Amino acid sequence: MAVNLSPPSVLEPIAGVRLASTRAIKSKNRDDLTVLAIDAGATVSGVFTQNRYPAPPVQVCRTHLGVDKTNGDIRGLAINAGIANAGTLGRGLHDAQESCRLLANLLGCEARQILPFSTGVIMEPLPMENYARGLQRCAGKLIHDNWLAAASAIMTTDTVTKGISRQVQINGNTITVTGIAKGSGMIHPNMATMLAFVATDAAIPAPLLAQWQRDIVDDTFNAISVDGDTSTNDSFMLIATGKAGDGNHTVVRDAIAGVCAHLAECIVRDGEGASKLVTIRVYGGSDKETCLRVARAVACSPLVKTALAAGDANVGRFLMAIGNAGGNFVPDCVTMHVDSTPVLFNGGLHSEYCEEKTAAVLAMDEIMIVIGLGKGAYEATLKTCDLTARYIEINAAYRS
Amino acid sequence: MAVNLSPPSVLEPIAGVRLASTRAIKSKNRDDLTVLAIDAGATVSGVFTQNRYPAPPVQVCRTHLGVDKTNGDIRGLAINAGIANAGTLGRGLHDAQESCRLLANLLGCEARQILPFSTGVIMEPLPMENYARGLQRCAGKLIHDNWLAAASAIMTTDTVTKGISRQVQINGNTITVTGIAKGSGMIHPNMATMLAFVATDAAIPAPLLAQWQRDIVDDTFNAISVDGDTSTNDSFMLIATGKAGDGNHTVVRDAIAGVCAHLAECIVRDGEGASKLVTIRVYGGSDKETCLRVARAVACSPLVKTALAAGDANVGRFLMAIGNAGGNFVPDCVTMHVDSTPVLFNGGLHSEYCEEKTAAVLAMDEIMIVIGLGKGAYEATLKTCDLTARYIEINAAYRS
Repeated sequence: MAVNLSPPSVLEPIAGVRLASTRAIKSKNRDDLTVLAIDAGATVSGVFTQNRYPAPPVQVCRTHLGVDKTNGDIRGLAINAGIANAGTLGRGLHDAQESCRLLANLLGCEARQILPFSTGVIMEPLPMENYARGLQRCAGKLIHDNWLAAASAIMTTDTVTKGISRQVQINGNTITVTGIAKGSGMIHPNMATMLAFVATDAAIPAPLLAQWQRDIVDDTFNAISVDGDTSTNDSFMLIATGKAGDGNHTVVRDAIAGVCAHLAECIVRDGEGASKLVTIRVYGGSDKETCLRVARAVACSPLVKTALAAGDANVGRFLMAIGNAGGNFVPDCVTMHVDSTPVLFNGGLHSEYCEEKTAAVLAMDEIMIVIGLGKGAYEATLKTCDLTARYIEINAAYRS
Repeated sequence: MAVNLSPPSVLEPIAGVRLASTRAIKSKNRDDLTVLAIDAGATVSGVFTQNRYPAPPVQVCRTHLGVDKTNGDIRGLAINAGIANAGTLGRGLHDAQESCRLLANLLGCEARQILPFSTGVIMEPLPMENYARGLQRCAGKLIHDNWLAAASAIMTTDTVTKGISRQVQINGNTITVTGIAKGSGMIHPNMATMLAFVATDAAIPAPLLAQWQRDIVDDTFNAISVDGDTSTNDSFMLIATGKAGDGNHTVVRDAIAGVCAHLAECIVRDGEGASKLVTIRVYGGSDKETCLRVARAVACSPLVKTALAAGDANVGRFLMAIGNAGGNFVPDCVTMHVDSTPVLFNGGLHSEYCEEKTAAVLAMDEIMIVIGLGKGAYEATLKTCDLTARYIEINAAYRS
């Protein structure tokens, strides 16, 4: 029951990137292993989970990308769904390294030029024989126009495929950005989030690519939360193949940022059990960290999230949640609107508060909550979803 | 569906404390206003919510108890359920002060000798006319043996009344400790929790009473979590009437601590929607704060809590949750058992891990999770419950 989310109908190919997917891991009825082959000369940059148990594939990615998390020499990605290869210690590390060797042999490069990604159940081992045969099948059918199939093959509990393309013109050249992502539960900011792969055919030097990625991730993948849990496997890769000319332009950066923002929002719209998309904007803060702390306190409160699910104007729960946030703000100066309907003023009920109007706004499936701190010029925006009985069903009824 | 929780059948009266309850606020079929009258000469100590929007009654309590949160001159408590009188600004503060004046007139003391307490829906005003008439009815029927009725009248979403008495002998004297509490949702440590009232007939000097209370609260009411939300009205009062002789003995302190530990556990057992009581013990930490951070990360993870609800041995979720904890520990040294069944060793699956055995333990309605950090001698224990669809129902289906 994703919130107003349709799958992409077209994803533009990126010159220099070929893809293939196959069924190899544990799914009975759909592809769950994907290979992404990158021509020589591309730059690649990655950000990864801050969880203290990074999965072996994340550890291998960090090693192969080097200390600065960028590498101009990456030639292939191997991405599997169904099993996260996390918490698997030495065996998991061996399997992740082996997957690089296998794909390197097939693509004619070295193992250090391959990056592995896994998502799914934690603490189960990869079925390496099936995995190897799957890589072989993929290597035999790599094509440029295959992003839609890849977007589907990387899903776990996702109900809708997530992808988007943007094109911009630079001096008569068309530059294309295409991105795909998966993620539905175990989603929380303060990290790089879930699996997301964004590629452009522009040429972008590795240090610039990494800088753009760090800037963009804070306002996109790090600005969403579904359930407050941070995955062991979160990875976001940015690839620039350089086939379509120089990409060092603001419009290219903006196109990449737009693709990331769209994918991040898709993940919230498809949040496990979500029936509503909730945007929380906190402004007037004396610093950005305070704005984020207030937004997160509201976004992560189960009592706020269940009131949102019910469309219940139980507005005291918002006050309670804001009051549990740390940071530098004066509780008595806080204001809150839902859309344009006033709720809180100076830390109490707004004199024009109207329960019927507020309930009508909270009954909608896309809700904007605006919180003013009245202290300064900083702001932060977080996207989250409501907490429904369906979330419990998904996570308590069977192992996803 | 409280977890193995029966109401108390007997609560011993405390010499120097008389109680009465009546229906006055918003309940249609049960008492929701309670008066507790204290004889002159008692000492009283309180701890209160750390939420940044403390309700007006909490503000009044702090003022009347003074800077050191103790007062040897308190003569009465007025406690209502149904409406929290929180987020009510000037009107709420006026109402809380007025309730003190009203009860002071009835008991023949000054308003500063009264403490007001409210619990229920946030941001609704108290019906002061009904409230005043209710106080009058209570004042006319105060008796010593009335703790059971009070335990029932302070409930909101609680499904079982919570109370206990302990008695100890000191030099031939019998010292009695009786406590009652309410709380079911909006329960999270890092505060003083919910409403709890514990009285003894021992004589305990105010500074000692306050010191005992601070020590005890950390291991009892601050060591539980239901949903990670901290209420605006949490208050825990400790009253020593001095009628039964000197209480400055370890056995008295232990009796008070035992009453508090029991009440805290009752609150978790009656946690909204709870089907399991889960005790999380973290040991081997280099400091207590790290132990608490790890315990809280596990206790507050919705993915751990839904796996516990399902009795699903999806043990990777525990690894994920521990990995999201801050603090000073080495992820690769972490071990975990459920009861005596090994699960994690050195940050990965234990070599003797058995999914069937683990699932059998997780299917029980009382579960002990033991996490070792392998770094030092500190430890911490937290009690929590699982997250079920019933929690969503309670909090999304209607306003509690």
